[in-house]
Amino acid sequence: MSLVVVGSVAYDGIETPHGRVDRILGGACTYISLAASYFTDVKIVAVVGDDFAREDEDFLSSRGIDLTGLERVPGKSFYWQGVYSADMNDRTTLRTDLNVFADFQPKLPEHYKKQPYLMLGNIQPALQRSVREQMNGLRLAGGDTMNYWIRDYREELLETIRGWDFLLINDSEARQLSGEHNLRRAAHAILDMGPHTLVVKRGEYGAVLFRRDGHFTAPGYMLEQVFDPTGAGDCFAGGFIGYLAEQGVDPAKGAIDDRHLRNAVVYGSVMGSYCCEMFGVERFRTLTRAEIDGRFQEFKAFTGF
Amino acid sequence: MSLVVVGSVAYDGIETPHGRVDRILGGACTYISLAASYFTDVKIVAVVGDDFAREDEDFLSSRGIDLTGLERVPGKSFYWQGVYSADMNDRTTLRTDLNVFADFQPKLPEHYKKQPYLMLGNIQPALQRSVREQMNGLRLAGGDTMNYWIRDYREELLETIRGWDFLLINDSEARQLSGEHNLRRAAHAILDMGPHTLVVKRGEYGAVLFRRDGHFTAPGYMLEQVFDPTGAGDCFAGGFIGYLAEQGVDPAKGAIDDRHLRNAVVYGSVMGSYCCEMFGVERFRTLTRAEIDGRFQEFKAFTGF
Repeated sequence: MSLVVVGSVAYDGIETPHGRVDRILGGACTYISLAASYFTDVKIVAVVGDDFAREDEDFLSSRGIDLTGLERVPGKSFYWQGVYSADMNDRTTLRTDLNVFADFQPKLPEHYKKQPYLMLGNIQPALQRSVREQMNGLRLAGGDTMNYWIRDYREELLETIRGWDFLLINDSEARQLSGEHNLRRAAHAILDMGPHTLVVKRGEYGAVLFRRDGHFTAPGYMLEQVFDPTGAGDCFAGGFIGYLAEQGVDPAKGAIDDRHLRNAVVYGSVMGSYCCEMFGVERFRTLTRAEIDGRFQEFKAFTGF
Repeated sequence: MSLVVVGSVAYDGIETPHGRVDRILGGACTYISLAASYFTDVKIVAVVGDDFAREDEDFLSSRGIDLTGLERVPGKSFYWQGVYSADMNDRTTLRTDLNVFADFQPKLPEHYKKQPYLMLGNIQPALQRSVREQMNGLRLAGGDTMNYWIRDYREELLETIRGWDFLLINDSEARQLSGEHNLRRAAHAILDMGPHTLVVKRGEYGAVLFRRDGHFTAPGYMLEQVFDPTGAGDCFAGGFIGYLAEQGVDPAKGAIDDRHLRNAVVYGSVMGSYCCEMFGVERFRTLTRAEIDGRFQEFKAFTGF
């Protein structure tokens, strides 16, 4: 009953108004996996170079993450560098060195293929599709994408998401993908593309879950200090799918319980909020499930009426 | 048990991507009063010129609004003209003719002075204070302000809001007033200025209620089409204070029930959302309390988990 996560494992250089790090573990697959690891067994598919540090591998392993599908090839790991604006609302990419990630061809170890849950991080749509096609016991599959694929690989992307149960994107991506500015209309258009479940992430404003029969809104958690928002959206995804995997959700056995989906969105928000409390993945070195459940209850307290 | 509302009664020229009107009833006092009139008796204090149309007066009266305090003086009524951007997120003011509003000196009819609820629309802080000082049986008083007063009349504004129970402003105003970018910190700083209740309006993203002992977030209502957002913030205020007046909230008799405050924020959001469905105040010509309560229940449905 594991979750397979595919995407980038990388090093990041990050500058925020609160400080700066030159090289810290990052990448969508890393954030998704760490967040999901609090809920379910996680198996990753990714590629790193020979510069990938033993301590980073040990950290992922310490969270119980299966690294059999973490391919190591000669060369350097994916490196991204960015700087946030003073108000943290904008970030500028200073450097994107794809390195070994440029030739990433996801290869699934045999024991991954029968797992029931799949989360495809933001990579080339054709690669996302190839992974999905290698899986043969899926209950729930979905993923993320970005403006670049929406604009330049549209047909490929549409073919890919047609087979997904859920799509997790941010509001500007939802607008771009649908061609509709109004979020509710955008969501209806996207639900016509295949996925039965759409989650639109809205940064500090939270997230909205859309299904054919209605929607659910969760606000963002109001931190006293957003230290570093890098990876928050991926941690949201990890909490969302991780919780659904933990609950053993299985659409083939009947409609997904709306309560599970709503809780999953809130757990996603909780994981995104914790991610912002320290640089990169640092918060996950100490975070406990009890803290996660505590914040989930806080969400109930500040949204109920 | 009435609510006294002070502010502008005006004519607006509005252009949105959905259409254009050259002259339509508007003004903060108008929007607040119309929204509040679904919950409680409303008495307004405002000034208009001799161009103020009988049909607009009749419309306000038809909603049971007491116009004794609507002063008529020779000259033209306040006129504002603005145009919204294609995505409705920005608006540009094309014209602001204060006209008779430039010399507005709020005068309270005798029977207004003993009323228990007071909502001060966005006018010069000293005028807001003068109104509050004329009231002698207040249970709950508060109001709105704007960037201009925060920047250029800061000391006067601080002296004014010190005596308020609640302050309703938007997020950029909260940041400007407090000097804090982080909303949670900004709220704490503002609660140190006097009001025990702060509501921060965040446009399409909803609103947050802050009190010393915690906060409550309400999302925005996701309309399929935002026809014209003019007045939505004022309608929020009208729904908020109108509902509290309807409930007979009285802090002198003990702490305000948190449930009442939360419901008030949601009713505020409901009124703001209806306001956006048609040009100006048009939606209030047909809106019913049953529709309002229906949307309140919708909020419960799409926020509960």
